[in-house]
Amino acid sequence: MINLKKQLLLLILLGMGQFLAGQELAKDVFMLQRKDWLKNAEASKPKLFEQVKKPVSIVKIVKDERSFQGWRSEGNQPVSELYSSSFKKQSGIVVDFKTHLTGYFTITIKAIHGTPDAPLRFRFTFGEVPSELVTPFEQYKGGLSRAWLQDEIITVMDVPARVTLPRRVAFRYLKIDLLGSSAFFDFAIADMELKSTTSVNIQPVSLAAGTNSMIAQIDSVGLATLKECMQTVYEDGPKRDRRLWIGDLYLEALANNQSFKKHDLTKRCLYLLAGLSRNDGYLYPSVFENPEPHPQAGISFLFDYALLYNVAVKDYLDASGDRGTALDLWPVVKKQAESPLIHLRRDGMFDDRQAMKDNWWLFVDWNKALDRQASIQGIVIYSLAQTYELARRLGKEREVSHLPALIARMTAAARKNLFNKQRGLFESGPKKQISYASQAWMVISGVASKKEGQSAFEALAAIKDVVKPGAAYLYHYVVEAMIKSGMGREAKDLILDYWGGMVKKGADTFWEVYDPSDDYLSPYGFFPINSYCHAWSCTPVYFIRKYPEIFQK
Amino acid sequence: MINLKKQLLLLILLGMGQFLAGQELAKDVFMLQRKDWLKNAEASKPKLFEQVKKPVSIVKIVKDERSFQGWRSEGNQPVSELYSSSFKKQSGIVVDFKTHLTGYFTITIKAIHGTPDAPLRFRFTFGEVPSELVTPFEQYKGGLSRAWLQDEIITVMDVPARVTLPRRVAFRYLKIDLLGSSAFFDFAIADMELKSTTSVNIQPVSLAAGTNSMIAQIDSVGLATLKECMQTVYEDGPKRDRRLWIGDLYLEALANNQSFKKHDLTKRCLYLLAGLSRNDGYLYPSVFENPEPHPQAGISFLFDYALLYNVAVKDYLDASGDRGTALDLWPVVKKQAESPLIHLRRDGMFDDRQAMKDNWWLFVDWNKALDRQASIQGIVIYSLAQTYELARRLGKEREVSHLPALIARMTAAARKNLFNKQRGLFESGPKKQISYASQAWMVISGVASKKEGQSAFEALAAIKDVVKPGAAYLYHYVVEAMIKSGMGREAKDLILDYWGGMVKKGADTFWEVYDPSDDYLSPYGFFPINSYCHAWSCTPVYFIRKYPEIFQK
Repeated sequence: MINLKKQLLLLILLGMGQFLAGQELAKDVFMLQRKDWLKNAEASKPKLFEQVKKPVSIVKIVKDERSFQGWRSEGNQPVSELYSSSFKKQSGIVVDFKTHLTGYFTITIKAIHGTPDAPLRFRFTFGEVPSELVTPFEQYKGGLSRAWLQDEIITVMDVPARVTLPRRVAFRYLKIDLLGSSAFFDFAIADMELKSTTSVNIQPVSLAAGTNSMIAQIDSVGLATLKECMQTVYEDGPKRDRRLWIGDLYLEALANNQSFKKHDLTKRCLYLLAGLSRNDGYLYPSVFENPEPHPQAGISFLFDYALLYNVAVKDYLDASGDRGTALDLWPVVKKQAESPLIHLRRDGMFDDRQAMKDNWWLFVDWNKALDRQASIQGIVIYSLAQTYELARRLGKEREVSHLPALIARMTAAARKNLFNKQRGLFESGPKKQISYASQAWMVISGVASKKEGQSAFEALAAIKDVVKPGAAYLYHYVVEAMIKSGMGREAKDLILDYWGGMVKKGADTFWEVYDPSDDYLSPYGFFPINSYCHAWSCTPVYFIRKYPEIFQK
Repeated sequence: MINLKKQLLLLILLGMGQFLAGQELAKDVFMLQRKDWLKNAEASKPKLFEQVKKPVSIVKIVKDERSFQGWRSEGNQPVSELYSSSFKKQSGIVVDFKTHLTGYFTITIKAIHGTPDAPLRFRFTFGEVPSELVTPFEQYKGGLSRAWLQDEIITVMDVPARVTLPRRVAFRYLKIDLLGSSAFFDFAIADMELKSTTSVNIQPVSLAAGTNSMIAQIDSVGLATLKECMQTVYEDGPKRDRRLWIGDLYLEALANNQSFKKHDLTKRCLYLLAGLSRNDGYLYPSVFENPEPHPQAGISFLFDYALLYNVAVKDYLDASGDRGTALDLWPVVKKQAESPLIHLRRDGMFDDRQAMKDNWWLFVDWNKALDRQASIQGIVIYSLAQTYELARRLGKEREVSHLPALIARMTAAARKNLFNKQRGLFESGPKKQISYASQAWMVISGVASKKEGQSAFEALAAIKDVVKPGAAYLYHYVVEAMIKSGMGREAKDLILDYWGGMVKKGADTFWEVYDPSDDYLSPYGFFPINSYCHAWSCTPVYFIRKYPEIFQK
């Protein structure tokens, strides 16, 4: 697995000069539309649904080698025991809200003996998983900001007090350390609450009676993950990063379409990305809402994410029926569809090497070892085909009349250059690498037939040095491809194995990073900074609900 | 020097039972007046005068054994150098506001490279003296709340940002440590400011031309100390404790009457103490303003402070001419004047031993070794005499017509029991202890004649085991007594020596704790938690301005 952030840093630094010299100073191709798109993004901003949540019990975090990351929570004392006595002897206590929550924490403190004569100092450590509460954060030396770690230190000058932390937190467990108090008075915590926020305020339909109980649990954890990430944009993770990425949006919208059907949020995100696109019309892969909407300027062009934007617009139209928005965003979609031509070789192959030399970012998966040629070829074909489908629905075929021939040419080139008929596998790059990613995208793009896809996936098991997916993001496409190849049972097994593995290890929400063989894996060099509620891991919700014949029987 | 807080704790614990069983549940003798007194306190609350102050320069805190507490600040780079470049390489920088300030700190942060994609984490350490910035606070194990130490840790979620710390701080130096940042963007501190607060908004008259320059410096540092402590009450220290004590009020009002003449603040404090007095009519020694005005309930009766309240009311009337307030507060004054009778022996001596057995707190000075018998006898006599003076001004002599005889009786008893004619010294307690405190109070109370006082102070120098003052609070009374004994030169020398010693060691404001022979002395076991701007040390202002013939020539 690669260090995404290191790669990102390199791409930013490499891309900076080019961007400043080039497209960012170019004439703004969307000059006339941009303002309205941002206005529409703002108008579609969902109202956050707030609920007051209280801690449910007092727990202990105990060492247990058999538990995820070596720690588990234990015990179930009522929180009233915490409230009913002096806090001085309870420093270090851990309370459990029993569910993953995102929002704003408030604590109320009262004097119980003597007159408050001095300030109090507390450290609040919020954890999505037990290990975050017991792993000293001082150890962290990674490249991501240490400030993502959720320990907040406050001084309370006067008692009684009701203090709300300014920072939004995402957690299930909270540890409270008393760092300073006066010998001249005693106090208790009178109350704690979280004003939880999400843009989701409905329950999706229940699964069919008799659904496999692990599938039902995976669906439930996936829904929780999605709900927590659905704030005023589709966030990638409510604890860390907290931004809108096209790739996460695409997957979250898929899951949302099958569950909460909160289409205004998708609409907002599509408009926001359009409104904040580069002057040359290509999309930034990620944007921020605060302090005011702005893109991650300076970042390299994330090619596959830009292509998936087109699929997301088509999916949005299909799910919502909102033709107006799709028409409004059509120029952005059309623009993204032009990008493959920039590095298209005469033989119909996309030139991934040249694109990378030009500082394009080809993501596909976290796995650094992955050769991306085949996957990118597949993503281009899939995106262009979906773009043409969208054009048909919008009566815009004439504007992209070149696409069917282009798709056919690229498909033929893929079959010619990537498909090893003898092995029944798609190969990628000069070293003819075999990977799950390549097979998946050849299937999803329609380069491989259903039967070829099936053979390919079956053949993978025997390949010793096959390149496996590095994260849930790619596992999603593998599952999708398996289903498309008629391998419903195998797709279900994969979900039971991968996402079910997280459930068995106690996940309340699905994790950003999950390697069944390494609980401590972190692309950031410190597992507590991983996001344990991450959008791109929520898609079992989509599969389970879209394919009930596979998953709900 | 004793540990004041340990003593206080003991007194609170001892006093608690008695108070709950006794006077605190008693009928409220001021039931009818209390509400109006508190209303008057609120109405007299001065408007805080706010000024925006900026750091002046960048300094280094360097080790120097010859400097106060082993550290001094050095260098004088303009702050613009801090603002003009990335902060990432400047973590740990110290800025100097060049003067002691009390107020609310705001920092402005801007991005200078890349797009902010992650939160920042900072630690701000505010110090009144250089050592506070370089002494790790983790070492602190004392009984006072560690939260008084002024290091605040914040998370800044979005950049650009303008963040105001909720806590009021008191400092001259600020160290800024960067605890977390992102590799993907760079940032600078764009601005810093302190909204300073004080209720003082005038300059007092200048000292006479030709005043000794050290005296002028002492006056200036004293004025700064007083100004910083004059908030919406006379605080004891703006960094630590931040409350209204009668003893500090008394001294601050003396200095204020000779300088800023902000009489509404004195009025507010006198009303606040009256309004928050105990149900039996005796005063609490200290009260708090926040979250709403309340006394330090449960604390023992601080006898000498209650007595000095009477003097403060008389002084207030003399300085302000506000007869209405003095009349309004007369019942409180009269009540305090009753307290000595509770433990008055038949021979005219106040029974300090019995009072302490009854959990009365006889403060006088920090010095634990001090025998308080003589001092307390003097304080009672002085307070009763001043009370009678106040009664005369208010036409209330008939209500306290017993006082002249009582004063005479106690004076005679003091002379008989405490004055050692052979040695020309006043002795205290069964071991006939000789102390500065005893001589001072015998002089101030008028028990000793001018000549006796002079002889006593002159004789002290030869006493090997004389008990010296433990803090500026008692040094004040010694200076007062010396002046009263016609020893202006010696009083001036003492001020030059004691307060001038602090000035020579770099004091911007006068310290709570100062022992010329021990820079590291702390009654709290950790010198950084000492207050370095402390009300009770400001009184040279009073002497220098009240006695120009001694100090301003």
